[in-house]
Amino acid sequence: MMLITRRERFNAAHRLFRPEYSPEKNLEVFGKCSNPNWHGHNYELYVTVSGPVNPETGFVINLKILSRIIREKVLDKLDHKNINLEVSFMKGKLASSENLVMAIWEQLEEPIRREGVRLHRIKLYETENNFVEYLGDN
Amino acid sequence: MMLITRRERFNAAHRLFRPEYSPEKNLEVFGKCSNPNWHGHNYELYVTVSGPVNPETGFVINLKILSRIIREKVLDKLDHKNINLEVSFMKGKLASSENLVMAIWEQLEEPIRREGVRLHRIKLYETENNFVEYLGDN
Amino acid sequence: MMLITRRERFNAAHRLFRPEYSPEKNLEVFGKCSNPNWHGHNYELYVTVSGPVNPETGFVINLKILSRIIREKVLDKLDHKNINLEVSFMKGKLASSENLVMAIWEQLEEPIRREGVRLHRIKLYETENNFVEYLGDN
Amino acid sequence: MMLITRRERFNAAHRLFRPEYSPEKNLEVFGKCSNPNWHGHNYELYVTVSGPVNPETGFVINLKILSRIIREKVLDKLDHKNINLEVSFMKGKLASSENLVMAIWEQLEEPIRREGVRLHRIKLYETENNFVEYLGDN
Amino acid sequence: MMLITRRERFNAAHRLFRPEYSPEKNLEVFGKCSNPNWHGHNYELYVTVSGPVNPETGFVINLKILSRIIREKVLDKLDHKNINLEVSFMKGKLASSENLVMAIWEQLEEPIRREGVRLHRIKLYETENNFVEYLGDN
Amino acid sequence: MMLITRRERFNAAHRLFRPEYSPEKNLEVFGKCSNPNWHGHNYELYVTVSGPVNPETGFVINLKILSRIIREKVLDKLDHKNINLEVSFMKGKLASSENLVMAIWEQLEEPIRREGVRLHRIKLYETENNFVEYLGDN
Repeated sequence: MMLITRRERFNAAHRLFRPEYSPEKNLEVFGKCSNPNWHGHNYELYVTVSGPVNPETGFVINLKILSRIIREKVLDKLDHKNINLEVSFMKGKLASSENLVMAIWEQLEEPIRREGVRLHRIKLYETENNFVEYLGDN
Repeated sequence: MMLITRRERFNAAHRLFRPEYSPEKNLEVFGKCSNPNWHGHNYELYVTVSGPVNPETGFVINLKILSRIIREKVLDKLDHKNINLEVSFMKGKLASSENLVMAIWEQLEEPIRREGVRLHRIKLYETENNFVEYLGDN
Repeated sequence: MMLITRRERFNAAHRLFRPEYSPEKNLEVFGKCSNPNWHGHNYELYVTVSGPVNPETGFVINLKILSRIIREKVLDKLDHKNINLEVSFMKGKLASSENLVMAIWEQLEEPIRREGVRLHRIKLYETENNFVEYLGDN
Repeated sequence: MMLITRRERFNAAHRLFRPEYSPEKNLEVFGKCSNPNWHGHNYELYVTVSGPVNPETGFVINLKILSRIIREKVLDKLDHKNINLEVSFMKGKLASSENLVMAIWEQLEEPIRREGVRLHRIKLYETENNFVEYLGDN
Repeated sequence: MMLITRRERFNAAHRLFRPEYSPEKNLEVFGKCSNPNWHGHNYELYVTVSGPVNPETGFVINLKILSRIIREKVLDKLDHKNINLEVSFMKGKLASSENLVMAIWEQLEEPIRREGVRLHRIKLYETENNFVEYLGDN
Repeated sequence: MMLITRRERFNAAHRLFRPEYSPEKNLEVFGKCSNPNWHGHNYELYVTVSGPVNPETGFVINLKILSRIIREKVLDKLDHKNINLEVSFMKGKLASSENLVMAIWEQLEEPIRREGVRLHRIKLYETENNFVEYLGDN
């Protein structure tokens, strides 16, 4: 199995809360992350694809293409944005890292498959201490 | 000269804009950072103090004390906050890294001097590619 | 599959040796790590759990809970300690990274399972060049 | 499952191109990497082996041995070399990260197996943003 | 004093040698870096400028401008190039980090001064273990 | 001014305490670092020298020479050692980072001067959050 990964970064604001919770309940469950005035992160995104090595190019996928897909489908929609308010693919979802990485997966899976390879894993760092990894239904 | 540095981190939302500018002018000057819905960062803060080494403890300053001062004077006010809306010492200031590092200096200089040492330098990373350093009026 | 990881750190002293070996044999097998006067490391610990995403919180596990479990079961017992002399769960074991990561797994598996999720992987860095990963009996 | 990883580094020059392509075609497919005058990288190599923990040493493999194998079979042949011109095990192959990591796998698999353990994964960073992982025929 | 720094990266090939030296002498002085077939690095470049904070923008310099200057004057000429053969501002100079950082200084000093600020320091990493810093005639 | 820096690393055990203090007083002043059974760190050492660039080699100092000096004068004495018990140049000194960096300075200053350059700065990381810098009597 050959895997290739591209790292990209984006900066965004978000807030963790449920509208039906009281402020106290939001604070209890989500801590400082429930601050109504938002906070934000430098997110690091690692997109990993798998596939055979093309004997002509030596590539699983040309990283220029992978990087362009990530830019168009994810970064242009997330970078310097408010995840709760402005990101169509996060509409109606809690802005947790888990939900965000699954939504990014949905954005990337089909365009990457059209290049003849397979989205294998997405890793998303919220801070240097906290990150999630999603492998789809694998 | 002996310098000792403590690294701390905080996550915050901010926005760069001038209220008297048009949205177009704000976008021209501040780019994506002017987004009215905020964005955010994982800030890294390096606080450096200078002073003689205490022969009894081998310390310039006990890092527990330095860390407590940074927490009380800076992190408790900035971490998981909106820099434009919620941080008293940034009131009325553009939320740039330059203005933020100078405001942090003002918060820390006097409490650190009371410990018998001197605030020497503050370094503030906004992203892995962009950081500011402030040395006071030195 | 959704995985979430929390990084924690601890500083500890240790020594690699077998009491029944001669000093020469210990030196031959364990090199400088056999020094009878100890040496130490800044260990980095990455604890990864797997589970479904709770639709109410958007979390696999609340990281405050995961961090507390790691602190109580591992860090309080290892941080600023001598692994050979002071850590009950390493009693009678060679203080290698492999043995340490398995012992940490035993400390964490049950308390994490009680939170309704599953310990998936523990990664332990001894230095920036050397690390082990343990996945249990998976 | 227990995995242990050793990181090593090497600096090398390379070029991505196909001799039968025109310069324009090489530029279109390989971009700046096709520069006929070469460019280079600080490669980071993570070699991961799996196996049972030896109860006598507490080791899957003595890292001195693993490090020596990597040095003899890989680093001595790649470090400060031109991958296209000077590396026998890359002869006739496009010098992509994918081809390089597979060739390194072939160099390491047998010598590591002779130590009673199994080569599990090789991860090769070309830059901080781009890396490949190879797991053999697993 | 306020300093602001922008990090940029480039990948290049080079070789350390003196044409009038014998191969043996080149090897003795420059070691593996004298390999006639080149080797290369992922260089990291930190460009630091100093100046007063503009009260209207909160900036010492708009990082978009600084980044553009570095791109036009340095990266476009160095990235994915052979430093010995293709970089006009290194013509006739030994391709050491010291000479390279001084040549980059000469490229950047005047364009940065035209923006009303002052080039303060350039830091150039050749590897994670080796770097140079140049402060001009300061 | 031209500065060149070499990074080296060592792993060591230490303890912060004063023999004339009671255990309670040691705990109050030095916290967990006073543990009588030792703890340890992966220290990172950055040695910076200044000097003119030799026009023949393009070097301030050949890093092979600088690295050898650091190895002989510092690493061979500190790596995998107990700083309190085994390091002659720390005899009778509290094993704080401040005292350690000054002692390392004394080890390196003269041998580096004999190479025709000047020791400019030593930076010593105890953890990723805590480091000291020493500039001699500059």
